[in-house]
Amino acid sequence: MSEEPSKAVRIGLLGRGTVGGAFAELVASRADAIEAATGRRPEISGVLTREGGDFGEILERSDLIVELIGGTDPARGYVLEALRAKRPVVTANKQLLAQHGEELFGVARETGVQLRFEAAVAGVIPIVRVIQESFGVTEISKVFGIVNGTTNFILTEMAASGAPYEEVLARAQELGYAEADPTDDVNGADAAAKMAILARLAFHTSVTLDAVSYEGIEQIEPGDLAYAKELGLSLKLLGVAERREGGISVRVFPCFLYPGHPLAPVEGPFNAVMVEAPEITEVTMSGPGAGGIQTASAVLGDVVSILSGDAPVHETRAQLPIVTDVASSFYLHLAVADQPGVLAQIAQVLGDKEVSVKSVVQSGAGDDARLVMVVHECLESRFSEALEAIDGLGVLRAPSRAIRVIEEEFV
Amino acid sequence: MSEEPSKAVRIGLLGRGTVGGAFAELVASRADAIEAATGRRPEISGVLTREGGDFGEILERSDLIVELIGGTDPARGYVLEALRAKRPVVTANKQLLAQHGEELFGVARETGVQLRFEAAVAGVIPIVRVIQESFGVTEISKVFGIVNGTTNFILTEMAASGAPYEEVLARAQELGYAEADPTDDVNGADAAAKMAILARLAFHTSVTLDAVSYEGIEQIEPGDLAYAKELGLSLKLLGVAERREGGISVRVFPCFLYPGHPLAPVEGPFNAVMVEAPEITEVTMSGPGAGGIQTASAVLGDVVSILSGDAPVHETRAQLPIVTDVASSFYLHLAVADQPGVLAQIAQVLGDKEVSVKSVVQSGAGDDARLVMVVHECLESRFSEALEAIDGLGVLRAPSRAIRVIEEEFV
Repeated sequence: MSEEPSKAVRIGLLGRGTVGGAFAELVASRADAIEAATGRRPEISGVLTREGGDFGEILERSDLIVELIGGTDPARGYVLEALRAKRPVVTANKQLLAQHGEELFGVARETGVQLRFEAAVAGVIPIVRVIQESFGVTEISKVFGIVNGTTNFILTEMAASGAPYEEVLARAQELGYAEADPTDDVNGADAAAKMAILARLAFHTSVTLDAVSYEGIEQIEPGDLAYAKELGLSLKLLGVAERREGGISVRVFPCFLYPGHPLAPVEGPFNAVMVEAPEITEVTMSGPGAGGIQTASAVLGDVVSILSGDAPVHETRAQLPIVTDVASSFYLHLAVADQPGVLAQIAQVLGDKEVSVKSVVQSGAGDDARLVMVVHECLESRFSEALEAIDGLGVLRAPSRAIRVIEEEFV
Repeated sequence: MSEEPSKAVRIGLLGRGTVGGAFAELVASRADAIEAATGRRPEISGVLTREGGDFGEILERSDLIVELIGGTDPARGYVLEALRAKRPVVTANKQLLAQHGEELFGVARETGVQLRFEAAVAGVIPIVRVIQESFGVTEISKVFGIVNGTTNFILTEMAASGAPYEEVLARAQELGYAEADPTDDVNGADAAAKMAILARLAFHTSVTLDAVSYEGIEQIEPGDLAYAKELGLSLKLLGVAERREGGISVRVFPCFLYPGHPLAPVEGPFNAVMVEAPEITEVTMSGPGAGGIQTASAVLGDVVSILSGDAPVHETRAQLPIVTDVASSFYLHLAVADQPGVLAQIAQVLGDKEVSVKSVVQSGAGDDARLVMVVHECLESRFSEALEAIDGLGVLRAPSRAIRVIEEEFV
């Protein structure tokens, strides 16, 4: 509205890979809109890449730092230095926040500058903002969802094609949905870092990465998906952070969902996150989990928020213990010997361990005889004991296979 | 962290119905969390009800006003007076914003105080914050969704039970999902007000309520749902705000969705909103659309945001024309005379008007003979001409029935 030119905001950009490049382009193409929204026109004042640039010089001539290097070192040092120099920071770096969040948030609070990181979790889905701002004083009971697009793509393809894991992984790599080294995606470590961040924000507690237990999808076999299809179940790699008796639990594991579950229709490389609390019931958000332009867009949203006004920095308000032995429902696949009395023996073991059976399908004959069961929620330690006892009965042709199930049926 | 007691924030509450009562309780039960998050402890400093209270006195002793009276008068006067007295305002009042948004936002900008209204649209789904803050500089191409829980409940029940509209409406009223006077919900006016607000925010343009065309669900017959089921379609009352050649279009209409559409599984009183833009692809958010505690929770989120820091007030950046004649795809139900050549005559008319047929199912015989067609996107004016010509052929046993379809098939 004023006639004088707006003051520029100088953005120091660390990293210029796919996301960094897309971010620089987005800043240029959206400069007018940013100026209209915030009164300040953005410009990239320096770019640090592996090939060149001096961090100290870039920091000196920047009002705000965008960190898109990834990894913890040297990113951690740069972000700390920027915060100490009172420069707000936007980062998309999940490992940095999951491993060094406590330190970084502490320095940001001390120096009174913002540290924003929407792009670190679930891509373009604004879950960080919604948990921190919309539900900042809500007593959240559970945050869970599909926070890794690579594994969701692989599981969707395995279910659709019946092809084995290795074959589908190779296809995901060809299509760019999986990296050349997919380890951290497929073993659940990537999702674990994201869930550590979400748990911290939802429960206002510090959550270290080693407090998050995780399993990946490398052991999933086409048969698991085929048998589950008979029950109408779909398989997802879920991250779950929830309040449990005595503390919280933060875990990543493959899990069957009943049809009608809001996460069941989330397919391919999409992410989706649900937030539950008594006063909100549940809110579900879904969208693309990755992609250069989408991630850059989330980074830009954070930059605009910083230019638009102050906001508090995350602060821990409680130190909640991690509960490791929680109750879960399981799908259980048993390749059984085709002889009388086997089901009775297995049922006896489950009964002894107080594991209650929800459904059982007996099928095949001879070398193909099998039992597919779903058991109701019980302590995982108790279920493991039951499983060990079943494996020890001498009636299985192959080791038992168990996968968690979200038991609730939605209408 | 400081030892001195935090400064209280005095909230003046206008209205104490279901939402107002739930809000007052929530403020009391979440006071510790609000103080921890913002450094200020909330207290209700006065309540204005139909029975008593003086607005001037309440304003005098409040730092912030929460307006939950509903309707435009006297709410408009109170909100304007509060803003002029430099008190930030939180409101859940969709009619107020849809009809007087331009004036209210103008005064808020002049006096430099926040006006927040998350609860006015889609209940607890934080769509206002996400559009304004996460996607504030994103070139949004389309915002659409299910923004009225009453009609979604009715359509879900009609599809499940096959019962007629009047019967299901009565049941919704018994269950509290529809009001005693359901007019504004079932005729689309409520959804139209919400879409006017979302269109304004998404496109940074002023949108008056009379620019929004709307149709309701009162004319939907069980047969429409039954025939559509054969095609796998589900029926929703959609609000759609989108950029179109030459401007924007903002409409509310019943619409069939193909299976796989992200909004197809949204059932019962839930709401869901999708935002589309090239740089984000699409983000979908769903959750309960109403409810006292849920709406109060959204109001409280706004209060906390105001206490947490400054934020810009909505400002129009463009004045986009309303495009009234847009292209749509249609489902068409024709009760035809059971005689040779009828399909040919109808196909001839559609061809003459350049309306292209996607699918056609011919079924029944004698007095039950019918054609169910889906036609590809064409200008609605052209489709209306075709419909008029078909009705004029003299081969229909009843007037033609047409309902819009979202044609895209998702995988």
